[in-house]
Amino acid sequence: MKHIAILGFGVVGSGIARVLEQNAAEIARAVGEEVGIRYILDLREFPDSPYGDRVVHEIAPILDDPAVSLVCEAMGGSHPSLEYSLACMEAGKSVVSSNKEVVANYGDLLLRKAREHGVSYLFEASVGGGIPLIRPFFTSLACDRVTEVTGIVNGTTNYILTKMKNEGRAFDDVLAEAQRLGYAERDPSADLDGIDAKRKIIILTALASGILPEDGDVYAGSIRNVTIRDIEAAEAAGGALRLIARTCITDDGRVAACVAPMIVKNGNPLAHVEGVYNAISLTSPVTGDILYYGRGAGSLPTAGAVLSDVTAILSGAARAECVPVFAKKPGSAIPFEAQSFPFYIRVSGSASEAKEALEAVTDTVIPLGDGAFETGVMTVAEAQQAVPGAVILPILR
Amino acid sequence: MKHIAILGFGVVGSGIARVLEQNAAEIARAVGEEVGIRYILDLREFPDSPYGDRVVHEIAPILDDPAVSLVCEAMGGSHPSLEYSLACMEAGKSVVSSNKEVVANYGDLLLRKAREHGVSYLFEASVGGGIPLIRPFFTSLACDRVTEVTGIVNGTTNYILTKMKNEGRAFDDVLAEAQRLGYAERDPSADLDGIDAKRKIIILTALASGILPEDGDVYAGSIRNVTIRDIEAAEAAGGALRLIARTCITDDGRVAACVAPMIVKNGNPLAHVEGVYNAISLTSPVTGDILYYGRGAGSLPTAGAVLSDVTAILSGAARAECVPVFAKKPGSAIPFEAQSFPFYIRVSGSASEAKEALEAVTDTVIPLGDGAFETGVMTVAEAQQAVPGAVILPILR
Repeated sequence: MKHIAILGFGVVGSGIARVLEQNAAEIARAVGEEVGIRYILDLREFPDSPYGDRVVHEIAPILDDPAVSLVCEAMGGSHPSLEYSLACMEAGKSVVSSNKEVVANYGDLLLRKAREHGVSYLFEASVGGGIPLIRPFFTSLACDRVTEVTGIVNGTTNYILTKMKNEGRAFDDVLAEAQRLGYAERDPSADLDGIDAKRKIIILTALASGILPEDGDVYAGSIRNVTIRDIEAAEAAGGALRLIARTCITDDGRVAACVAPMIVKNGNPLAHVEGVYNAISLTSPVTGDILYYGRGAGSLPTAGAVLSDVTAILSGAARAECVPVFAKKPGSAIPFEAQSFPFYIRVSGSASEAKEALEAVTDTVIPLGDGAFETGVMTVAEAQQAVPGAVILPILR
Repeated sequence: MKHIAILGFGVVGSGIARVLEQNAAEIARAVGEEVGIRYILDLREFPDSPYGDRVVHEIAPILDDPAVSLVCEAMGGSHPSLEYSLACMEAGKSVVSSNKEVVANYGDLLLRKAREHGVSYLFEASVGGGIPLIRPFFTSLACDRVTEVTGIVNGTTNYILTKMKNEGRAFDDVLAEAQRLGYAERDPSADLDGIDAKRKIIILTALASGILPEDGDVYAGSIRNVTIRDIEAAEAAGGALRLIARTCITDDGRVAACVAPMIVKNGNPLAHVEGVYNAISLTSPVTGDILYYGRGAGSLPTAGAVLSDVTAILSGAARAECVPVFAKKPGSAIPFEAQSFPFYIRVSGSASEAKEALEAVTDTVIPLGDGAFETGVMTVAEAQQAVPGAVILPILR
C-alpha cells in the first residue's frame, strides 16, 4: 500500500478522494499496489466524510510521517502552497499540484527543489483540467521542439462568448447566468480579465521553452468590454471571437506570450470550440500542429489529471521522464506592443483616413464596411499608433 | 551511444533517420546519451545515402549484434514484419513499430513476446501519425477506463469527402486529384474501403479494452458510393459526411467496433475536421471527452511518433508504464448489424410507407423532405429491414 496526503479538501481535493475510490482497481494496476489516503490537510473539519478521521490542520504530521511518499497539493493560491510544497520535497516526498498560480509564479523554485532532493514535482492538472496535455512535453514531444502554443484555456470566458454569439445576449446578462450555474465565480475577475489564462500560458511557455515568464511580462486582455457588435463583426469577418492565450518561442530563445480577445477564423479549429470546453494547439517542426480538446475544469477531470501524475510517480515512470528545468530569464519576454498579428480594426471616425494611416504600416488593408478593416501583419503598437482609439483585435488564422 | 536498427527505409524509415539527425540534441537530452543508426534493413541499396554503408539485406546481423538494443520496424505488411519483430524480441531487443497492419493482426502475440523477454513493444506511430495518442493509454489514462473511441483516422478519405463538399465535385474527380497530389495511392482500396481505418480502430479497441478484435469481426464501410447528393443531405441535416471509425466497450466487456460513413452533426468537433487531418475522441468516466487532432500521416510526424517510443524505451520510462496485454476473445465482438445509432435514411419509394415502417421500430422519425428522414436510435439490422434498399447512414451527435 502506498500512502499519500491531500492538501486542501475542496473541489479538486475531494475529487481526488472520489477517483481514488472509484478507480481503485485501475490505479492499483497502474501503480503496482494500492494507493490510500493517510492525511487530508484542511482548515475545516469534515465529520460526515469517510475521511473525517484523517483530517489534520497542520503540515507537520505529514512531513514527519515517513510512510507518506507523495503529497497532492490542491489548495490554490501561492501561499502557503509554496512553503508546504517545498517543505514536503525537503522531507523527501514528491508533490503533485493542481495549482496553476503557484506553478506560474514559483515553478522554477519548485522544480529546482525537486531535483535537489531527488523527488518529482508534477502539475498535469494545472492547465486544461483533464486534458492530458503537460505529460506529452516530457514524453511524446521530448524529442521535438515546441515553437508555438495557442489555445482557449479558460472555460468561463469561452462559455460567456459562446452564449453571447449563439443567443445574441449582452455580456452582463450572460455573466449573471454563468454565475448562477456555477460556471463563473462570484468575483469573476481572474477569469474575465485573463488572469487565469495568463497563469496557464506562463506554464505552457515554460514547458515549451524552459523560460518561466514573470507575471508582469505577459499581457492579459479582458473580455469585459466585448460587445455584441464585436461578436457580430467576428462572424462577418468569417470567424468567432475567443479569448486566446498564445506563446511563440523565437529562434533566438525569446518568448512572445499574451492573452487577448482575438478573432479566430473559421478554418482554425479553435473557432469551433464552444461552451466551457478548452482546446490547446501545439506547433513543432517534426510533429506539425496538434490540438487537444476537452473539459478544462471540473472536479473529476481535474482529479483524474492529478492521479495520472500520482501514478507516473508511484510507478516509477516519472523518474525516467525528461522533466524540464524552468528558469526566469529577465529580458527574454517580447512585450505585447511589439508582438505582430494581422488585425481586425474598427474606427468610429473617418474610414478613408484610417485606411490611409494603416496603409502606411502594412501592405494589406481590406475594408469590411462600417469603418472596419482586416489588415496585414503589423505590431500592436503600430496598429494603436495608426488608428488611436479604434477597436483593435488580433486575427488568428 | 545507444545503437538502433531500422527495418525498411521507405517514407517512415528514412524519416526516422532524418529526425534522428535534425533533433539529435533533444533526443540525446531525453535519452541521456546519443542515439545512432547501426543498421538499415532493406531489399534495396542506397549508394547515395549517408547511411548507405549501414544497409543490410538480412535480419541476421542485426539479431547477432548485442550493441543493438532497439529496432524500429517500418516495413509495413504483416510478413516478414511479424517474424522479424518476434526474432528481435527473442534476441533481447525492444521493438518500435509504425506498422498498423502487424499490430492489428498480431498485437497479442507481439506484446506477449515482449513481456516474456523483458523488452518493450511500442507502436505510437501506428495510429494518428504524429498525434501523441497511444502513450496516454499507458500513462495519463492508465487510472481511467476508456469506454468509447470515435474518430477520423484516415486522411485520404477525409480529404476526398472534404473536397467533394467544399467544391461540389464528384468522387472520381477528387480521387484522381488526390492520387496526383500523393494523398491517395495508385491502388487506393485500403483507404477508400475502410481497411486502413479498420486496422486503426482494432488497435484503439485493444488499447481501450484489452480485447484485440479479429479483422473479420469489424465492419468496414467504403466511401466509393458516396455521392454529392449524400454530402448535400448531410449538410441539410446540419452536419458533414465523414468516414468514422468507432468502438464502444460495453459494461460486460463486449466491443462494438466499426468503420462507416456517418453524418456528423455540427455540434460535434469531428464535423469540422477538414482535409488530410485526423481527429480522435476518447470518452472515459473520470476524464470525460477529450479529443486529439493533427496530421495523421506524413514522413516527419510519423517518424517523430516512432522516436517518442524510442525515447521512452531508451530512457527507461517505458519499463514503468502500464502497457496492456492484448488478447483475442472469440464472441466478444458485437456485429455491425446489431450496433445501434440514430440514422439518416433516404428512400426512393413511398415516403409515407417508409415513415410507417420506421415508426414501427423507433419513436422518433423526423421527415426531412425528398424521402429523407432522421430517426431515433435503432440497430443497423432494424433499419435495413424496415426500409430495404434505402440509403442508411448512422448519425453521430
